[in-house]
Amino acid sequence: MSTEPFAAVEIIAIKRDKHELTDQQIDWFVGAYVRNIIAEEQMSAMAMAILLNGMNRREVVRWTKAYIDSGETMNWSQLGLPTADKHSTGGVGDKITLPLAPLVAACGVSVPQLSGRGLGHTGGTLDKLEAIPGWRASLTNTEMFEVLKETGAVICAASQTLAPADRRIYALRDVTGTVESIPLISASIMSKKIAEGTGALVLDVKVGSGAFMKTVEQARELATTMVAIGNDAGVTTRALLTAMDVPLGRTAGNALEVQESLDVLAGGGPSDVVELTLTLAREMLDTSGGTGTKDPAVALTDGSAMDVWRAMISAQGGDNSAALPKAKETHDVIAQSGGYLTKLDALAVGVASWRLGAGRARKEDVVQAGAGIQWHVGHGEAVVKGQKLFTLHTDEPARFESALEVLTAGYEVGTQQEISERLPLVIDRIV
Amino acid sequence: MSTEPFAAVEIIAIKRDKHELTDQQIDWFVGAYVRNIIAEEQMSAMAMAILLNGMNRREVVRWTKAYIDSGETMNWSQLGLPTADKHSTGGVGDKITLPLAPLVAACGVSVPQLSGRGLGHTGGTLDKLEAIPGWRASLTNTEMFEVLKETGAVICAASQTLAPADRRIYALRDVTGTVESIPLISASIMSKKIAEGTGALVLDVKVGSGAFMKTVEQARELATTMVAIGNDAGVTTRALLTAMDVPLGRTAGNALEVQESLDVLAGGGPSDVVELTLTLAREMLDTSGGTGTKDPAVALTDGSAMDVWRAMISAQGGDNSAALPKAKETHDVIAQSGGYLTKLDALAVGVASWRLGAGRARKEDVVQAGAGIQWHVGHGEAVVKGQKLFTLHTDEPARFESALEVLTAGYEVGTQQEISERLPLVIDRIV
Repeated sequence: MSTEPFAAVEIIAIKRDKHELTDQQIDWFVGAYVRNIIAEEQMSAMAMAILLNGMNRREVVRWTKAYIDSGETMNWSQLGLPTADKHSTGGVGDKITLPLAPLVAACGVSVPQLSGRGLGHTGGTLDKLEAIPGWRASLTNTEMFEVLKETGAVICAASQTLAPADRRIYALRDVTGTVESIPLISASIMSKKIAEGTGALVLDVKVGSGAFMKTVEQARELATTMVAIGNDAGVTTRALLTAMDVPLGRTAGNALEVQESLDVLAGGGPSDVVELTLTLAREMLDTSGGTGTKDPAVALTDGSAMDVWRAMISAQGGDNSAALPKAKETHDVIAQSGGYLTKLDALAVGVASWRLGAGRARKEDVVQAGAGIQWHVGHGEAVVKGQKLFTLHTDEPARFESALEVLTAGYEVGTQQEISERLPLVIDRIV
Repeated sequence: MSTEPFAAVEIIAIKRDKHELTDQQIDWFVGAYVRNIIAEEQMSAMAMAILLNGMNRREVVRWTKAYIDSGETMNWSQLGLPTADKHSTGGVGDKITLPLAPLVAACGVSVPQLSGRGLGHTGGTLDKLEAIPGWRASLTNTEMFEVLKETGAVICAASQTLAPADRRIYALRDVTGTVESIPLISASIMSKKIAEGTGALVLDVKVGSGAFMKTVEQARELATTMVAIGNDAGVTTRALLTAMDVPLGRTAGNALEVQESLDVLAGGGPSDVVELTLTLAREMLDTSGGTGTKDPAVALTDGSAMDVWRAMISAQGGDNSAALPKAKETHDVIAQSGGYLTKLDALAVGVASWRLGAGRARKEDVVQAGAGIQWHVGHGEAVVKGQKLFTLHTDEPARFESALEVLTAGYEVGTQQEISERLPLVIDRIV
């Protein structure tokens, strides 16, 4: 006879029949899956039942805890400094982590930032940083601590030992049509952030065509769920809902976005990137319990954020003086008429950049460091006939055609009256 | 690049999002699963999505067709006789197939009956027949044809080559909490019956505590779905909804039910078993296009149904003259007071019989031929203090205690006014 306290099929049936799972049932189910007592096909049936029948707040909190308990957790108390992290649900041109982490460190709060790679039309922070010659994403826990202690910020890949249950379940959800579940998305994100050991967490939940959440309602539900999970686990957590109907900044791509981040750290850069970076920096400082040792706007202009950036990049092997990679081929899109850029769709720009080689379709694909798109005119700005609207970058010119196909459908030039409405940069704040 | 026309995750997402699957999508999904292009965890996620979001009539018909197309189909046209089959969704004491198949054959309609083994508290026709010394359930297609041609009826195990997709999916559903789906149950039952090649089919959909369908509404939905699938596939199909709130006849168990069937074939037996057997026989004769060559009530009393039985059993190696197995131990339950048997719950009797060794918990378990229960008083009948109410049979006396525990909760002796209401034997007819 089995000594297991439950049978997998009975627990699946509870969720299938729209009932609540107890804490004990959740702990056992996730733990037994990790112990290979529960088969992949049983977890996928459960994931579909959760996706369709939902989980209440208590269940999501416990499901997340079971993910965390499946692996190790990190602790930064030896630093003797407050810690804060930011997580974005992903968007097009969203390079905010790059200037934000050193900026917050320059203001006196340590930033232990575990990041991921991109999949599909949204870029990944690690892919962007890997455009810097010599920079490496994988650090041991000791190395991560050393970089954080020395420079105040570290951005690196999550260790395989953090929330391994989520790692396996995420891979399973990816092939079984069960990604799109707010409880499961929340548990996946929050388990890694909580296990990472940050004291405070600010969530940037993107809304719009280029984001995973297409509507404000969906995004608010996701944000509310994640804020509850974080606070329940003792991590002071807030969320901002921010716009992803148009892409952020003026570039999408890996090296292109590193360059734009350097512009921001040098006191320049596109105004929306600067505004969102400062907003998130102030939120992180506030969430971690104070106002920081310096105003973030000052840290961007006095060179102190740039100093942290250079130390952080260098500590992970990156060459700050090396030129960033450039794509072998470029193609300019020229305005055929004058007027205004009445539409600039984030999803179209993201997919075009992906098709140029900046992103990957499968986990094992390699990204091009130099590939991507620059838009020389922003949404709502004036267009002069004959000017450059876009520059496309890729190492493989055969990619231009399919990128242009989607990009062309994603922008329009027209009259001032035709400028499409757009979401405010910061839509809402969930505490 | 893959040459597959669809991706599994896209098809799963369609059903997850409550949309209809096209015929092409269904054909591909089931076929690709059989070709091992679709993984077990993908089919289980789809099964859960189907269970929770349902399928419309067209989708169920096509899903069933995809099961049929995964294997071979049989054809009895060489017999030159009408064919009819009956399928019961399973109940307690439901030995009807045993007298019914030879009875219908005696009336001029051939009965090619593929049956299954029992699992849980409902018995299986093959388990019952295997109580007869020498009888074997597994026949080649040629042997099956020969028995059918020679005797007019054959009851045997379904070949592995009929609807193999269903065989695999059923095993998967069993461990993933996705058995309880009317579309998937319907497809599972009907694919095997249609592939079996019968010309007419009568479904006996059981309703009540001892049945899979607990309510008339559920049973009617299942019956309506199955009747539509059958008729769509060219098999004239009807369904009866019949009572399974109290057990059928006076015995549950393998050899015990063979004996009761022999009583019916000899012109006796419990009145409910006789009535249901005759009702289903007339329905099968009518569904197969005529009234038969003889009235079924006559065939039970003139010995012609018994003759077919003997020939059929003998053709499959069974010894008609051998004594049926008897359990090593019996235990009588004595009435502690007089009055009426006010309650006799089918589920309690079924579970008690199962615990005595008549049924199996796992497919690989062996059943006891002699185990089971006799009830000496039927529901609503008078009880005299001190008389035998039940006799329990098993080879292992250690089993009496747990069987009595459930049986005791399943019956009551009280006043005439306290006799519980019961369902009519035949509740409805779906054509």
